[in-house]
Amino acid sequence: MNAVSEWRRWLPSLPVLHWGREYNRTTLLSDGVASLIVTIMLIPQSLAYAMLAGLPPEVGLYASVAPLLLYAVFGTSRVLAVGPVAVVSLMTAAAVGQHAAAGSPGYWAVAITLAFLSGTLLLVMGLLRLGFLANFLSHPVISGFISASGILIAASQLKTLMGVKADGHNLVDLSLSLWSQADRMHGLTLTLGVATVAFLFWVRSGLKPLLQGLGMAPRTADVVAKTGPVAAIAVTTGLTWALNWQAQGVKIVGAVPQGLPPFTMPRWDLGLWQSLLVPALLISVVGFVESVSVGQTLAARRRQRIDPDQELVALGSSNLSAAFTGGFPVTGGFARSVVNFDAGAKTPAAGVFTAVGITLASLFLTPALFFLPQATLAATIMVAVLSLVDFSILRKTWNYAKSDFLAVAATLLSTLAVGVETGLVVGVALSLALHLFRTSRPHMAEVGLVAGTEHFRNVLRHAVLVSPRVLSLRVDESLYFANSRALEDRVNNAVASRPGLEHVVLQCSAINDIDASALDSLEAIDLRLRSAGLQLHLSEVKGPVMDRLKRTDFLQRLSGQVFLTQYQAIQELSPEAMRTPRAAT
Amino acid sequence: MNAVSEWRRWLPSLPVLHWGREYNRTTLLSDGVASLIVTIMLIPQSLAYAMLAGLPPEVGLYASVAPLLLYAVFGTSRVLAVGPVAVVSLMTAAAVGQHAAAGSPGYWAVAITLAFLSGTLLLVMGLLRLGFLANFLSHPVISGFISASGILIAASQLKTLMGVKADGHNLVDLSLSLWSQADRMHGLTLTLGVATVAFLFWVRSGLKPLLQGLGMAPRTADVVAKTGPVAAIAVTTGLTWALNWQAQGVKIVGAVPQGLPPFTMPRWDLGLWQSLLVPALLISVVGFVESVSVGQTLAARRRQRIDPDQELVALGSSNLSAAFTGGFPVTGGFARSVVNFDAGAKTPAAGVFTAVGITLASLFLTPALFFLPQATLAATIMVAVLSLVDFSILRKTWNYAKSDFLAVAATLLSTLAVGVETGLVVGVALSLALHLFRTSRPHMAEVGLVAGTEHFRNVLRHAVLVSPRVLSLRVDESLYFANSRALEDRVNNAVASRPGLEHVVLQCSAINDIDASALDSLEAIDLRLRSAGLQLHLSEVKGPVMDRLKRTDFLQRLSGQVFLTQYQAIQELSPEAMRTPRAAT
Repeated sequence: MNAVSEWRRWLPSLPVLHWGREYNRTTLLSDGVASLIVTIMLIPQSLAYAMLAGLPPEVGLYASVAPLLLYAVFGTSRVLAVGPVAVVSLMTAAAVGQHAAAGSPGYWAVAITLAFLSGTLLLVMGLLRLGFLANFLSHPVISGFISASGILIAASQLKTLMGVKADGHNLVDLSLSLWSQADRMHGLTLTLGVATVAFLFWVRSGLKPLLQGLGMAPRTADVVAKTGPVAAIAVTTGLTWALNWQAQGVKIVGAVPQGLPPFTMPRWDLGLWQSLLVPALLISVVGFVESVSVGQTLAARRRQRIDPDQELVALGSSNLSAAFTGGFPVTGGFARSVVNFDAGAKTPAAGVFTAVGITLASLFLTPALFFLPQATLAATIMVAVLSLVDFSILRKTWNYAKSDFLAVAATLLSTLAVGVETGLVVGVALSLALHLFRTSRPHMAEVGLVAGTEHFRNVLRHAVLVSPRVLSLRVDESLYFANSRALEDRVNNAVASRPGLEHVVLQCSAINDIDASALDSLEAIDLRLRSAGLQLHLSEVKGPVMDRLKRTDFLQRLSGQVFLTQYQAIQELSPEAMRTPRAAT
Repeated sequence: MNAVSEWRRWLPSLPVLHWGREYNRTTLLSDGVASLIVTIMLIPQSLAYAMLAGLPPEVGLYASVAPLLLYAVFGTSRVLAVGPVAVVSLMTAAAVGQHAAAGSPGYWAVAITLAFLSGTLLLVMGLLRLGFLANFLSHPVISGFISASGILIAASQLKTLMGVKADGHNLVDLSLSLWSQADRMHGLTLTLGVATVAFLFWVRSGLKPLLQGLGMAPRTADVVAKTGPVAAIAVTTGLTWALNWQAQGVKIVGAVPQGLPPFTMPRWDLGLWQSLLVPALLISVVGFVESVSVGQTLAARRRQRIDPDQELVALGSSNLSAAFTGGFPVTGGFARSVVNFDAGAKTPAAGVFTAVGITLASLFLTPALFFLPQATLAATIMVAVLSLVDFSILRKTWNYAKSDFLAVAATLLSTLAVGVETGLVVGVALSLALHLFRTSRPHMAEVGLVAGTEHFRNVLRHAVLVSPRVLSLRVDESLYFANSRALEDRVNNAVASRPGLEHVVLQCSAINDIDASALDSLEAIDLRLRSAGLQLHLSEVKGPVMDRLKRTDFLQRLSGQVFLTQYQAIQELSPEAMRTPRAAT
């Protein structure tokens, strides 16, 4: 694929050119209202996620400006809101923490470099149309990973809630660290934090029904409930200011620099790039998967579509812009996108207005945040991420498929016990390994004719007609190197135990591919059957498989024939069989 | 699986107890003759492969005694001859060379440790019945790996043939090293070496037809031709002794210690074990695959069977015994096993007699090897391994399946350019990745009824009957996380372009599994179709898949029905369709 011709093919179809042309006063009003609500919600969230990533709070604001503008130009979702999100911030903290101490200036530079690498990877994957790679993250693995990340994030905020210092990128380290600090807990901070958590939970579960009970429309009630964190911030900041809590040891946000996002550069350090490559790749893939699934869910509600490959380009550009404007890795967030959608955003222009709002906030609002207690931010994070934790997938997969259950459980446990990167790699590797293991031991069934039809089913499950002279074997898997030996063994065993046999017919309706190793095995089976005086036939071979077999001399050398249907095979090889019923067992 | 109960299950079925009971004078005679021929062939081969592995020549003899005895007790092949083989010796040299200089005493200790680890891994794999893991080495990868190893081995022997020193575990390093030494080439050594190579090639290609022309039976002629290396050794040793060539700079084997194999211990050094683990695993797998394929080929000729899991135990015991008797990693060799078979060996007792023969040789024969030129040994290795090189697999896979071709080519090139371990890992990883990539983009076909049958085929390939109200879609792949999104896209696109549609029927005859991610996708498809006023039906769902679906509420919530056959689905949903022919395109 040629990148230049790719570009040419895209330029005229840049998403912004589509929605830009139809822009009018109605969409402007809808987008304006939505962006105001999202801006109010984003300010505390951006500060909080920057803190989660180990960065100064203003970095969260910087990361919520340029990425929104770039996504508005390149993105295919009309309502996705891009910026710092919980899981990616946690992964950023884990990755950057291995190269610099949290709080040091070097730490910020590494985070910027991580955003640069992640953006570059996403852009390259988009240009190469590698969006399908995200499919290799199975739903159970994503689900286990998100739940475990939610727990890790909540645990990491406990230290701020308790007013102590603690460290660690997995649950074991975090718990030990917190335990050793338990006696230094700061009572006022903890009280403040716990009260905020309780208030935020009540807003989520109690306020919305209350407002609806008072006659408010459900969607309006929902949007009002989403402003809970803003209220918590206003109240706790006011209390801290009024009662001088910071003098009693409550940690506050303090001076946040006023001004536009700065122009920054990633570190041009190949050694650093190399060691950040794997984390950057994992962050890119997780961010992409989260963003695309949010985008698809919301697009489906309005019968719109998003293009995963174009989304890669849009997220790549967003992250690159974050790297050059003092930000850190970003992606499309669930909560903010849903708010944007519910508040009535119609086009990505809402994102542009939100970016303007955040810019104004970072120019003029930051002094108002001086007395904001850090524990309040920690409380908003905790309440937000605990809604991500959902263990029902464990029960669901346990009932449905043990291999999916294993993948969830391994992802959950390894994320909690070792960390986010290991957890993700373990999950993907295990789900692939389990899939390969399953296909390497294919289900094979001896089939017989369902009386009165032309249909063949498993002799063990259905009352079917079979012939003692013909073995009809259906292989329920494509034949490839990992399972071709199993087929040889199965045919050998079947033939050895059936002395009257004259024909073996492989019903190929479930065989979607036969690779070179499997072709060797089929030849070996044919030779062995022939030397025992039997013939090997094939039936219901699919078009693509047949095309390929015809390019070899296998079909010429085959002892038997290729039949269009299994029914025709039996009609010709053993017409008398259609009168011999055999009971199901 | 419980190892103790495993053992109990085996002990009474130890292979030696089977053939030992039937042992008589006839089998004794056959085995005796065969073992004599194999012993004569093994002596030079053992010396040569020890040299290839960078070890003193007598180590090759040590590695050909105890492993043969252990295999005779535990092995299931009646004719497999275990000992040093070319590819495993090359891999040993590559692995051990990273920890000690060839020729140093430490080098031998590391080789012994490698045999110990490899034996332990094989034994554990056998106890856990992991023999199927070898299936993940596809035929094309094995073929590319063996050919590339043959070239590497031949190249590594050029230095001895030229009488210079050179180093390197891949073709690039070897060539550069040889090139820099080209001006120090030793003329007499080279002449001797090239003459031996020419003689051995003539023995292979010219002597056998000549003997047959003189009236010798083909099999006898074959066995005589196999003694060519012994003749070459006798003649060149005699010439070197008589003409005092070692004084002119021809390197000779020199003093080989006389005596029984020593008792040795592996190094109990966890750090060393850790760094040898991957090489040991690769050596185990390659050795196992080589041994099992030789064993199976020969067993099939006599309608015997071998048990891969028991073979793992046998090879594991053999390697452990090599570690404790001064040997190095061993496996079942192709050439020697074929000679053993052709010479008439009937039971593993032939291996026991061969072990006795090699012991006698290492007790009494080694002084006769003093004047044996090293170039002669190099020549025997070169001629032996060049028969392994076979590029026809490249053409064959190019014609048959490009993904298999890619796997061969990548294995070949990376083995030559980087080394044996990298080559093998690249080959396995690439063939698995290509398989996953293929299954992530499944072939899907719209199908219609073949007139006059109950059979449905692709509308693009066959003249079939279809209904404008019903879309019949056959997915030619199991549904799992990597391809479930592709199905969603395909159904969405099909529905969007077909306004008159009322029903979508998924013909599930090729769907062998539906994992949790794919179940989510099916639910999403059903919801989307239902909201567009369409029904989703399934047909020909296989037993195991149906069992699993029944454990969820998917079937209750499904908008449509599940039909036994696609024919019944169309009969019920659109009986008029069976009268609307549509031309194949």
